[in-house]
Amino acid sequence: MGYSYAVLGTGAVGGFYGARLQQAGFEVHFLLRSDYAHVREFGLKVKSIDGDFNLPQVNAYNSVEMMPSCDVVLLSLKATHNYLLPQLIPPLLKPDGIVLVLQNGLYVEEQVASVAKIRHIIAGLCFVCSNKIAPGEINHLHYGKITLIEYAPGYRRCGVTTRMEQIAKDFTSAGIAIAFAEDLLLERWQKLLWNIPFNGLSVVLNANTQEMLASPEIRQLVLELMQEVATAATACGLIIPKDLFYERIKLTEKMKSYRPSMKIDYENHRSLEVEAIFGAPLRIANKVGIHLPRIAMLYRQLQFLDAQNTLLH
Amino acid sequence: MGYSYAVLGTGAVGGFYGARLQQAGFEVHFLLRSDYAHVREFGLKVKSIDGDFNLPQVNAYNSVEMMPSCDVVLLSLKATHNYLLPQLIPPLLKPDGIVLVLQNGLYVEEQVASVAKIRHIIAGLCFVCSNKIAPGEINHLHYGKITLIEYAPGYRRCGVTTRMEQIAKDFTSAGIAIAFAEDLLLERWQKLLWNIPFNGLSVVLNANTQEMLASPEIRQLVLELMQEVATAATACGLIIPKDLFYERIKLTEKMKSYRPSMKIDYENHRSLEVEAIFGAPLRIANKVGIHLPRIAMLYRQLQFLDAQNTLLH
Repeated sequence: MGYSYAVLGTGAVGGFYGARLQQAGFEVHFLLRSDYAHVREFGLKVKSIDGDFNLPQVNAYNSVEMMPSCDVVLLSLKATHNYLLPQLIPPLLKPDGIVLVLQNGLYVEEQVASVAKIRHIIAGLCFVCSNKIAPGEINHLHYGKITLIEYAPGYRRCGVTTRMEQIAKDFTSAGIAIAFAEDLLLERWQKLLWNIPFNGLSVVLNANTQEMLASPEIRQLVLELMQEVATAATACGLIIPKDLFYERIKLTEKMKSYRPSMKIDYENHRSLEVEAIFGAPLRIANKVGIHLPRIAMLYRQLQFLDAQNTLLH
Repeated sequence: MGYSYAVLGTGAVGGFYGARLQQAGFEVHFLLRSDYAHVREFGLKVKSIDGDFNLPQVNAYNSVEMMPSCDVVLLSLKATHNYLLPQLIPPLLKPDGIVLVLQNGLYVEEQVASVAKIRHIIAGLCFVCSNKIAPGEINHLHYGKITLIEYAPGYRRCGVTTRMEQIAKDFTSAGIAIAFAEDLLLERWQKLLWNIPFNGLSVVLNANTQEMLASPEIRQLVLELMQEVATAATACGLIIPKDLFYERIKLTEKMKSYRPSMKIDYENHRSLEVEAIFGAPLRIANKVGIHLPRIAMLYRQLQFLDAQNTLLH
């Protein structure tokens, strides 16, 4: 028997993986906000490189109070909404339940761990290109693999747990590639290697990945930003080899004209995950005495653009 | 008797100063491109904090061949067009004539000096807020002072020349404040102290001076960029005191919601003066072994945005 899943945030990531799980026969409950009425009536649609599919009927909710508690809470809200977690997660979680964190950001697991009653946290680092293109409609463009690492206090390693194995089994049977890893912080920094240059510059330069990589100047800047990520990681005792820079750029070239999630959020006047992706690593770097001038500059530019864009400024 | 003036580039700067000179009774000839037909028929209009005025008739040309040679060529083209100088300047200049360089950019005088037959070059560093708001129509918003420094090969100092004094006399009688300075490179670097942060960031952040200075993050970034300018200047033996940073910011606060010239060029899909304002100082810094990560990053961002914006990419 597989786990039951509550999808906390039915967008490009949560909507995609949740729909795949339901399609494979798992019990899935979806929390929605703006798309609630639409999804309740029409379900979810997934356009995917692996084959399009529709789920005409899904368990849709606009409040956690109405949802049953599940084995796994799939945390796929924007990290900007994490101040809501103490209200959102506890009602959804069975006593021994798991929070599967599919969010971006450094030290997001510690944030989740601070919520009462949460005993098990697994980070799921998604390497996926997907966008929500209409209410209840997701476009899955490339890739899809999730790397699972269980969190333990202080980010100590805890190997492959039975919980990770069960989630891997469920996701694999739903056609989602899964990998296991052990060093959560290393994986998080490696993810920043992509997120910092591509998410950040896509907003500042109003450009997709193809446009950015077509420019020798921006290619150079991407490498310089990656180098700053690696420098900070090294100062934390985590080695990111330079080969990985070029590997990530190669994978990005294959994405063609992909708009990173931060770009899409910006276009839709939604708050950007500036703190999770930029603020957190900058604070760590500062703590270990490392200076990241380019990342800090991009952070300031994004803080400004975010504030202007959401009209809170 | 005052000098006669040929205005090479009748935009926000050349149009404003040229109109003032004509208003004061000097002989002025204006070279125009896109506004030629309009200005030939309707003349120039100046909205100014010092008082609006119209010149219903001006000497307007669309080709240097039709213009008489003058004592002074007022060089106020965008620096991006300086490849045209060998064709444009010689026909306009009397044998002992002066090129008064009102352009932005480091080492622009050397570029002008390489044009045949030019014997006298005076840099005029304009501290003025003005925009062209319609064909033949200029809005003069704040300030207006010009600092004059005569150029000599190798940027050696040559004091206050009779040519500077004559130009000062002419401009002063036209209501334009004039200052003299001796160290041209120092003045150029000090001008970059403003141009690099405010011109550059206004394009990248799609913001005017008021919006930028209202943000604590951007204020901080402006100071960091200024520090890089000062560091590079110091490496060239030129001291920019930190007091000047705050003085420039204070003067900028008084400009209210000013859009720097680079922002206006960007909005009008004109090429940006990226090389004059960013490329040149970065090359100098590189030569003296100084690393300017933030200015280099801004340079790359602007190169990208400029190329995308002018559709040459």
